[in-house]
Amino acid sequence: MNAVVKGRLIGVGTGPGDPELLTVKAVKALGEADVLAYFAKQGRRGNGRAIVDGIVRDGMPELPLYYPVTTEIHKDHDDYKSQITDFYNESAERVAAELEAGRTVAILSEGDPLFYGSYMHLHVRLAHRYPTEVIPGITAMSGCWSMAGLPIVQGDDVLSVLPGIMDEAELVRRLKDTQAAVIMKVGRNLPKIRRALDAAGKLGRAVYVERGTMRNGGMINLAEKADDEAPYFSLVLVAGWEGKPSEDCE
Amino acid sequence: MNAVVKGRLIGVGTGPGDPELLTVKAVKALGEADVLAYFAKQGRRGNGRAIVDGIVRDGMPELPLYYPVTTEIHKDHDDYKSQITDFYNESAERVAAELEAGRTVAILSEGDPLFYGSYMHLHVRLAHRYPTEVIPGITAMSGCWSMAGLPIVQGDDVLSVLPGIMDEAELVRRLKDTQAAVIMKVGRNLPKIRRALDAAGKLGRAVYVERGTMRNGGMINLAEKADDEAPYFSLVLVAGWEGKPSEDCE
Ligand SMILES: C[S@@+](CC[C@H](N)C(=O)[O-])C[C@H]1O[C@@H](n2cnc3c(N)ncnc32)[C@H](O)[C@@H]1O
Ligand SMILES: C[S@@+](CC[C@H](N)C(=O)[O-])C[C@H]1O[C@@H](n2cnc3c(N)ncnc32)[C@H](O)[C@@H]1O
Repeated sequence: MNAVVKGRLIGVGTGPGDPELLTVKAVKALGEADVLAYFAKQGRRGNGRAIVDGIVRDGMPELPLYYPVTTEIHKDHDDYKSQITDFYNESAERVAAELEAGRTVAILSEGDPLFYGSYMHLHVRLAHRYPTEVIPGITAMSGCWSMAGLPIVQGDDVLSVLPGIMDEAELVRRLKDTQAAVIMKVGRNLPKIRRALDAAGKLGRAVYVERGTMRNGGMINLAEKADDEAPYFSLVLVAGWEGKPSEDCE
Repeated sequence: MNAVVKGRLIGVGTGPGDPELLTVKAVKALGEADVLAYFAKQGRRGNGRAIVDGIVRDGMPELPLYYPVTTEIHKDHDDYKSQITDFYNESAERVAAELEAGRTVAILSEGDPLFYGSYMHLHVRLAHRYPTEVIPGITAMSGCWSMAGLPIVQGDDVLSVLPGIMDEAELVRRLKDTQAAVIMKVGRNLPKIRRALDAAGKLGRAVYVERGTMRNGGMINLAEKADDEAPYFSLVLVAGWEGKPSEDCE
């Protein structure tokens, strides 16, 4: 009896929304994989899965990994943490079962897999057990500053990537201490982010982008945005570049 | 007599080295553009140009923009600054001449065009005068952390992107004040970067990657790298992730 050759795990970055922003390598990997796995909320398809709609072949076996319904429990609560840890453990074992059977599994990740992506929770559980490859994706921030035509950093500029969930005073301090900034995870944090930018003297330079590179995407100077509503897929850019002529590179 | 319709300017991110890391959109744009422009050192082809070797059609008109020879002048010297500013002005006018003649010009940029790329110097001079599109590219850092299989940031981690040219004390301060870091522009700055990481207590977690995603690329824990030699195409990664289970996103 032959031992089954284990399958390969491939983390596939889908980019921020426009399906043409997948890399050539990602498109190839999706064509070659046996199973398509992705995280999604119950009853939804997930954004990563929607992006590759026109790319995956008809009838490709899918393994959706549905988040448990945890909205009633606060994220800092121990029950939440243990439920979500259990969920990642179980998800990893479902993927492992496919790999043990010799099937190659592509796991979709919106943007870049290893940059604030939930793919990482499977990666740390599986990459040491199976042959693994990570295919980078265009990050949401790259998609957004490209769409905005905004040169973000140049020369000796520092770029700080700041999750909008952080404490307001901390956000102000960090915004003051950087040339360029990207604030991720905006959503319900927008009022706080606006106040922090104002306190740091950078509100006038802040650009708000929602659903960057998606069909219904848009952008506006944050100071001109009248309300404090923001969808999940939104971020804020503060460019460091101030037109100083200095050589960058080849 | 009809006025000539102006051509389009397209900033095309080539990604960090592996030609399969171009996006589908970038490949299309190269196929449709009339002229291929790129920066290079005198007598060289430039890394961006080398990456797209197997992609551009035979006989596509090329507009190489050769940096002036400025190696004898120090970068902070006024003569250097004025020579390089003149060079960017002249380069922009050479591209503008093509656009005025109705030709679409694709300007290559290694990695992502608006992230420490010299494309930005043309962008700020031309984007307000001609229809312009920027196609994002996989950044060098994404290519490197994917190749290393290193989850870089998660949850509420802050990522600081630090140019290795900065002052040593400043580098130490910023490395201490962040969860994750990417240090770009390593080259001759490697000894300083190593000392700064050590002083910040993060040398043990630093991963050195050179020529990431290129055929002759490699990586090593920085602490184990015996010498302080580093090529131009190298960077250092410090991951923020410490295995804490927290929900990221869909
Ligand atoms: C958990 S992170 C995932 C980041 C992703 N892995 C990447 O490489 O950019 C989710 C956050 O990314 C940002 N984001 C993702 N897609 C976006 C888009 N198309 N437009 C604007 N922001 C986006 C939002 O700030 C959102 O809260
Ligand atoms: C002026 S920056 C250009 C950055 C590029 N636009 C990007 O999106 O990453 C040049 C620096 O990028 C880094 N770099 C570029 N390509 C790289 C590669 N293939 N491997 C490692 N580092 C690279 C090096 O630190 C180099 O000094």
